[in-house]
Amino acid sequence: MKYNGEKLQVTVLGSSHAPAVGALIEGLPAGIHIDMEQLAALMARRAPGRMALTSTRQEADEVEFISGLNNGVTCGAPIHLSIRNKDVRSADYEAIRNIPRPSHADYPARIKYGDDWDGRGGGQFSARMTAPLCAAGGIALQILAAQGVYVGAHLAAVGPVDDEAFDAMTVGREQFERILTNGFPVLDAEKGKEMQQQIAAALEAQDSVGGIVECAVTGLPVGLGGPLFEGVESRLSAALFAIPAVRGVEFGCGFGAAHMNGSQHNDPYGIRGAGITPLSNNAGGILGGMTTGLPLIVRVGFKPTPSIGQAQRSVDMKSMKEVELRISGRHDACVATRAVPIAEAMTALVLLDMML
Amino acid sequence: MKYNGEKLQVTVLGSSHAPAVGALIEGLPAGIHIDMEQLAALMARRAPGRMALTSTRQEADEVEFISGLNNGVTCGAPIHLSIRNKDVRSADYEAIRNIPRPSHADYPARIKYGDDWDGRGGGQFSARMTAPLCAAGGIALQILAAQGVYVGAHLAAVGPVDDEAFDAMTVGREQFERILTNGFPVLDAEKGKEMQQQIAAALEAQDSVGGIVECAVTGLPVGLGGPLFEGVESRLSAALFAIPAVRGVEFGCGFGAAHMNGSQHNDPYGIRGAGITPLSNNAGGILGGMTTGLPLIVRVGFKPTPSIGQAQRSVDMKSMKEVELRISGRHDACVATRAVPIAEAMTALVLLDMML
Amino acid sequence: MKYNGEKLQVTVLGSSHAPAVGALIEGLPAGIHIDMEQLAALMARRAPGRMALTSTRQEADEVEFISGLNNGVTCGAPIHLSIRNKDVRSADYEAIRNIPRPSHADYPARIKYGDDWDGRGGGQFSARMTAPLCAAGGIALQILAAQGVYVGAHLAAVGPVDDEAFDAMTVGREQFERILTNGFPVLDAEKGKEMQQQIAAALEAQDSVGGIVECAVTGLPVGLGGPLFEGVESRLSAALFAIPAVRGVEFGCGFGAAHMNGSQHNDPYGIRGAGITPLSNNAGGILGGMTTGLPLIVRVGFKPTPSIGQAQRSVDMKSMKEVELRISGRHDACVATRAVPIAEAMTALVLLDMML
Amino acid sequence: MKYNGEKLQVTVLGSSHAPAVGALIEGLPAGIHIDMEQLAALMARRAPGRMALTSTRQEADEVEFISGLNNGVTCGAPIHLSIRNKDVRSADYEAIRNIPRPSHADYPARIKYGDDWDGRGGGQFSARMTAPLCAAGGIALQILAAQGVYVGAHLAAVGPVDDEAFDAMTVGREQFERILTNGFPVLDAEKGKEMQQQIAAALEAQDSVGGIVECAVTGLPVGLGGPLFEGVESRLSAALFAIPAVRGVEFGCGFGAAHMNGSQHNDPYGIRGAGITPLSNNAGGILGGMTTGLPLIVRVGFKPTPSIGQAQRSVDMKSMKEVELRISGRHDACVATRAVPIAEAMTALVLLDMML
Repeated sequence: MKYNGEKLQVTVLGSSHAPAVGALIEGLPAGIHIDMEQLAALMARRAPGRMALTSTRQEADEVEFISGLNNGVTCGAPIHLSIRNKDVRSADYEAIRNIPRPSHADYPARIKYGDDWDGRGGGQFSARMTAPLCAAGGIALQILAAQGVYVGAHLAAVGPVDDEAFDAMTVGREQFERILTNGFPVLDAEKGKEMQQQIAAALEAQDSVGGIVECAVTGLPVGLGGPLFEGVESRLSAALFAIPAVRGVEFGCGFGAAHMNGSQHNDPYGIRGAGITPLSNNAGGILGGMTTGLPLIVRVGFKPTPSIGQAQRSVDMKSMKEVELRISGRHDACVATRAVPIAEAMTALVLLDMML
Repeated sequence: MKYNGEKLQVTVLGSSHAPAVGALIEGLPAGIHIDMEQLAALMARRAPGRMALTSTRQEADEVEFISGLNNGVTCGAPIHLSIRNKDVRSADYEAIRNIPRPSHADYPARIKYGDDWDGRGGGQFSARMTAPLCAAGGIALQILAAQGVYVGAHLAAVGPVDDEAFDAMTVGREQFERILTNGFPVLDAEKGKEMQQQIAAALEAQDSVGGIVECAVTGLPVGLGGPLFEGVESRLSAALFAIPAVRGVEFGCGFGAAHMNGSQHNDPYGIRGAGITPLSNNAGGILGGMTTGLPLIVRVGFKPTPSIGQAQRSVDMKSMKEVELRISGRHDACVATRAVPIAEAMTALVLLDMML
Repeated sequence: MKYNGEKLQVTVLGSSHAPAVGALIEGLPAGIHIDMEQLAALMARRAPGRMALTSTRQEADEVEFISGLNNGVTCGAPIHLSIRNKDVRSADYEAIRNIPRPSHADYPARIKYGDDWDGRGGGQFSARMTAPLCAAGGIALQILAAQGVYVGAHLAAVGPVDDEAFDAMTVGREQFERILTNGFPVLDAEKGKEMQQQIAAALEAQDSVGGIVECAVTGLPVGLGGPLFEGVESRLSAALFAIPAVRGVEFGCGFGAAHMNGSQHNDPYGIRGAGITPLSNNAGGILGGMTTGLPLIVRVGFKPTPSIGQAQRSVDMKSMKEVELRISGRHDACVATRAVPIAEAMTALVLLDMML
Repeated sequence: MKYNGEKLQVTVLGSSHAPAVGALIEGLPAGIHIDMEQLAALMARRAPGRMALTSTRQEADEVEFISGLNNGVTCGAPIHLSIRNKDVRSADYEAIRNIPRPSHADYPARIKYGDDWDGRGGGQFSARMTAPLCAAGGIALQILAAQGVYVGAHLAAVGPVDDEAFDAMTVGREQFERILTNGFPVLDAEKGKEMQQQIAAALEAQDSVGGIVECAVTGLPVGLGGPLFEGVESRLSAALFAIPAVRGVEFGCGFGAAHMNGSQHNDPYGIRGAGITPLSNNAGGILGGMTTGLPLIVRVGFKPTPSIGQAQRSVDMKSMKEVELRISGRHDACVATRAVPIAEAMTALVLLDMML
């Protein structure tokens, strides 16, 4: 349960229905001031019960620092941060203790860990575990920003509705800030409304819907990363696929590149100002596993929330009888929505690790 | 330059124009017999100069075992295997020593490592480095097969031409064997001919074309993998993105899931024979980062070969002048073609590591 | 701050004067029952304020399980355990905030982390951090015992007084249990009394005294470990030197072997019962980095407690003036005493990791 | 088979009777010139057949660079270096294939890996594996020296004869150079002669003798290392115990500290020149797992060479009969002698890793 970077390690603590979740962050230098308001703002973007149409579980997601800070400044000791689980309704899970929810971790987890597995709220497989990762990533985002590296993401698609895409050459802080002002994490507010209608319609139908998050990073130096398993894509994809419900990760033109010719896809070089630079950015800012200095562009595809209210077929693993399952609980109809800040946080953790 | 698994480590040795490339494989048990003919057959599928329309660089890609085997059987010591680089034409690279080839690793590598970087043939960023990984993966494929786990892949797309897709419920050895009999790695021989026409046309135009590899694994037990960064997708994607030219990785319905509803995408459970099983496989055999027992399905998108004969714009980094570049050398017009066995090998390494 | 084994990871949380210290244990199988009384008994052996002549800091050292257990049984999720820091007197440290205590971590820590370092109670360098390691190791001890592997330690020396040594051929549970009945962790109760006199005399003189812990493990299978860095000695020594105040680690005859001839030191083989076995155990149960099946014997040398009441010379790092320092606080006069269960715990963690 | 540092990795290749041994070094920056003569001089100090009274196996131990260097300068790619095994006499080992040599790795290796284990020359457990580590460490020594960090070692003891010890406050390059001029690695040439007599006498008696290597490092910055498992002692001891035949490792006063009082052992602080410094160095340059800026002192105890000519008792593991064993082969009577440069190399690898 840890992000095990070269220089940065983030160990995730707790589980969905434990008293708390948390993280231990190791590898940060001493002397870094953490802006608590900025961190709370990021946490709020991920927290349930804040946006219309997201889970009604109410969690303040207040980050408490147990150790590692001295008057708000990193003191050299590992940072232990904790987030209380307040609004836990374990009873919701008692009735379905032996009935795996379709497309959830329940079935393989039960087989893997046996009857002792504590699956309330999804246990250690819950999306709740992304809260401490978001907090750790929020600190990483602040450190990167202090070095001129900015990370931003938006909902690129919900079901059939696409947001405007980032321009791979010019994307930057202006766009990132615009996304935060729309009430919904999109570049085009109109598209955001259409997306919200999609989600509302899914909820209405006791259904859910998938989505895509597009994330960009600007201000990166040239040459982060390395060959083979040290490549930026290997490291970033490992972290992004750690977010529950992710089904695909692509960089630059991504799968679209498979349908292109080299003469279309190649990015020629030219001199701009004092230096050499690629003149287009189909590469999404990465060549040979290394950053090129242009914006890094990554897209992350999310499946629809597996918890839906409609009746579904499942099996009672105790009686070994087929049953009809109706999930009550409180769930997002589109996990991608709250995943926007998580994708930013994960991306920041990986890139900070490479820059330390 | 290593695959750093939990129990299996594969360190990659050498570089494109060194006397040899190789691998050190650690973590395999003693007493495993390696079938040298089967290994050679896999290497031949990856080797350049074997298939029509691939690079004319001639490499026997014969695997020599330096240590770790005792009469063809693993003896407990790490396996050191070596593959000679015979047909090296470093002269091809002298003329362009200071001119980064568009969409290659040259530019960021030169910035990262400085003027001392040895970029002949792409140095450590060359696709040549996948030869020893293919050999290591070939051993993994044999060990998995002995346990009833089979891995197979095909070219799912080249430019605009799609092969028939794997059926996520029924895919298995029958399909894997059919792919090997078509002379070209596809399920549908007709589609294979169309793909070859696409590649020939690209070559004719001194251009290149992208493609998609689809890989399936059958016979996996339930519950391999784990939460967050321990998930099958995180581990597999990190290995697959290590293959040069990969731009996207998706599991099951992948990015397609983003456009689906939960009621369509969810895989219900039922009882088949003595046990519980998902009744459909949109998940591609993975839930909560763990295997479900159904076939694992992963798709890997490749960009078009960046080396093309057409004139391209670049910069001489010594004189800092913009120049026109024409790449001679010997290159595949579609890297995805030879990547089919590499994807199998990488997938096998990761899954064997989880099963050890 | 983590024990990073092959299959077992223990991340240490908190610091000396934080609200709590704790540990996250990853890699244990599900379904293991933890005996809480046995764990508490081990913690009590390490806890301050329990034995005469140890620190008067009063800590219950009660282990609270935040997550990972389901009715006292491991459930597959990582185990998060927490131990409150109750009797914290940070004021003791205010006066000496800028004055490094001789032979403590203060000086290099202050240089390494800068003025933001939080050195109260030694911060992350405090021996308090061994409490959660002791708890984690206590769980490992229980798992090993269930497999017939027993770990025991005693105080082999305090200053000039030596306890009887373990017999490397016959040591076992009988000795381990005897040690626990003496009120002081020795084989020879008379020697224990002499040691306690040494410690009392040192306390009286506002001084401290060093000591040696000898640890033995029985019931290990043959062949744990491996070549070079995978050797049992490499792994065990890395964990034992992590205990604060350790200055030396030796196996079997240890440094004594340097003064022996091969004909004296070599352990011949013979047949006993159905199998081959070494007929003597100068090796301390390890050859070529691997266990031999005979008892593993390791000795750990501890320096005298650096905190002493006598006046010492130091420097005020703020005013950069030489000063006389008198340390009040509450300290053990002989750290080795409470290190006996810690050595057992550390040894158990490493060996369990190798046996998983 | 790898030194797995934070930033530096050294993977060891080959085995005792393979065509070659070698190393892959990852993590070094590009642009470092390697002085081949200096490297050869270090290798010669370790090589068999060079010093009187060492093994008569003749190995040039010439280091060949397969990849990673460009005109003698690191180019950013991993360094693959290879050392041919020329003087291999596998026949010596045929007769004893089933008879474990006392106090060698043979017995546990045979049990661990089974009958397929290739034990010729000790296989992967041979001291021959230290040749590539010595080469890798030799490069580390050069990089450290360029930063003002010097590493030197001497034979502190052979059997009953002690060399003069390093002075922990004043040791430095002057002593390190003196050691190299004595024909035998000691500070006091007279003591060196006595040691050589001990070794000759042991050889004469078809016996062997143990020894101690003392190693010092000067010029280190303050604050390398960290708490618990990140401590300098944990990292150094793990590397030093990886050297075959090592039985003990101690820092500063080592086990001697166990018999001291705090008032004797503590190192007070004073101001010297512009800065604060410990006024004595019983700590051996390490406090709280971190360097203090004073010389680092570590002592490594070696057992007597297990291969002796005298008759020994063993068992034929095939027939399961007790037998008398006489080892012919060619062996050092005192492994500690050739271990002097190995201890320097290992120490350099670990410290360079911490300084990168």
